Amino acid sequence: MFTGLSAFPLTPVTGDSLDTAAYERLVARLADAGVDSIGALGSTGASPYLTRQQRAEAAKIAVDAAAGTPVLAGIGALATRDVLALAEDAQNAGVAAVLLAPLSYQVLDDDEVYALYEEVTRELSVPLCVYDNPRTTHFRFSDELHGRIACLPGVASIKIPGVPADPAEATARIDRLRALIPDTVTIGVSGDALAATGLAAGCDAWYSAVAGLFPHIAQAIMRDPGESERLQPLWDVFARYGTIRVLAAAATRAGLTGNRVLPRPLRELDGDTLREVTATLAALGL
Amino acid sequence: MFTGLSAFPLTPVTGDSLDTAAYERLVARLADAGVDSIGALGSTGASPYLTRQQRAEAAKIAVDAAAGTPVLAGIGALATRDVLALAEDAQNAGVAAVLLAPLSYQVLDDDEVYALYEEVTRELSVPLCVYDNPRTTHFRFSDELHGRIACLPGVASIKIPGVPADPAEATARIDRLRALIPDTVTIGVSGDALAATGLAAGCDAWYSAVAGLFPHIAQAIMRDPGESERLQPLWDVFARYGTIRVLAAAATRAGLTGNRVLPRPLRELDGDTLREVTATLAALGL
Repeated sequence: MFTGLSAFPLTPVTGDSLDTAAYERLVARLADAGVDSIGALGSTGASPYLTRQQRAEAAKIAVDAAAGTPVLAGIGALATRDVLALAEDAQNAGVAAVLLAPLSYQVLDDDEVYALYEEVTRELSVPLCVYDNPRTTHFRFSDELHGRIACLPGVASIKIPGVPADPAEATARIDRLRALIPDTVTIGVSGDALAATGLAAGCDAWYSAVAGLFPHIAQAIMRDPGESERLQPLWDVFARYGTIRVLAAAATRAGLTGNRVLPRPLRELDGDTLREVTATLAALGL
Repeated sequence: MFTGLSAFPLTPVTGDSLDTAAYERLVARLADAGVDSIGALGSTGASPYLTRQQRAEAAKIAVDAAAGTPVLAGIGALATRDVLALAEDAQNAGVAAVLLAPLSYQVLDDDEVYALYEEVTRELSVPLCVYDNPRTTHFRFSDELHGRIACLPGVASIKIPGVPADPAEATARIDRLRALIPDTVTIGVSGDALAATGLAAGCDAWYSAVAGLFPHIAQAIMRDPGESERLQPLWDVFARYGTIRVLAAAATRAGLTGNRVLPRPLRELDGDTLREVTATLAALGL
């Protein structure tokens, strides 16, 4: 479950309601495409913006629609109390694993983050993937801290944000992390633009946002890393407007969701920006 | 209410419960000291880590214990839905104003933040203070965006994170912002270390964490900015270990709270760090 392609779909929200039909459709497409696992309620799944009830409901829908493909569910929240409650809900929904990012408001220190993972893994009966995403959590893991956390019982994988663009540096970065963690813990790259580089550098998995909507694109990149270069205009609009907003526009354009997809305060692209993104998607045949 | 000294107390939490007796004590001391307003549930008040029920309860306690001193209550949350619910609760508790920071997980753009303030001010019947704190929210307001938001109905003040250390640059920074906002909107400095510089540069208010526990210290700095220099060792441990953790240690040391003060994942200082902070406080007579 912690190797190969893990696809992270949007969680479409219309007003204050989960669009359950659209969500079911998005997840079922991924299972049909044969991805190795489905990452429900990740960053692209806008999970920190949903209520506990919506997250529990989404986890259930994902497990059902995945029809046997293993589902990882994000359980990140600012307060440890909420993380524990989300872990319980996700396990009750039947997920195969959970994904935990150390969300922050106050700047957290290493011991606080270690203690968070220690407390959560103590309560879990499914494996946990450590989610390292400084762009959204504003917490920077040291490799030393990754090493300590990876030794906690139940930790099975680390989702790293990306790798250096230079192939040799990317390999050195993965080797350095690998030396500090148990052999049983896999490393997965995210940040779609550098995923091919990360896989070539030895990552075991790709935790992918683009695969959450375009699984065949991600599978093509896994077969032929050169495909990633062709998609540079997509990576560029991801960087410029935010992956979640571009994928929301793409999901609407593909008729997979309505026009309202994102929970507020996030807003769908519109006007010139939407036209630019639509043109980019069209030029790439997406 | 949006001028002078506004004191931001801790919200003591023991395990999963609000320590209501300690909170009442902390707030009452501020009213007794004669601060101009009380900032309940700010960053130092750890509000994003509390449940909606805890925040509603704390707002009620603060209004009662403040005994007529105006209370501003923080209503920041990641989801707009939650911000609106918190605004309603705070108003029901009888607060005089609300304080709103644009918390972020996904990186927000200017239009999303403007729309958030537009939606919230439309629902409010009390004034709002814009809370600009990039260290915790990871959103950077441009002065132009401050100007747009300050024109929304009900916006009464802007809490800025700090000012440049150089007095001339601080004055220029305040003048630049002042030129873009209505005359009715005040500017308040936070970041205690540079508050004296901010007030000298023309800020109307000091939104102060140190005043939330040591109101007389803050009042002394307002009378004599030289006092701030004497407190440099305190500002240094604030920067090193986090204001909230240092003030939690100081509250425990003063017998105003128990040993457990902070909601998890935040943790109280201990070991050598606690000894260093305790020695610093003792040397300053705090």
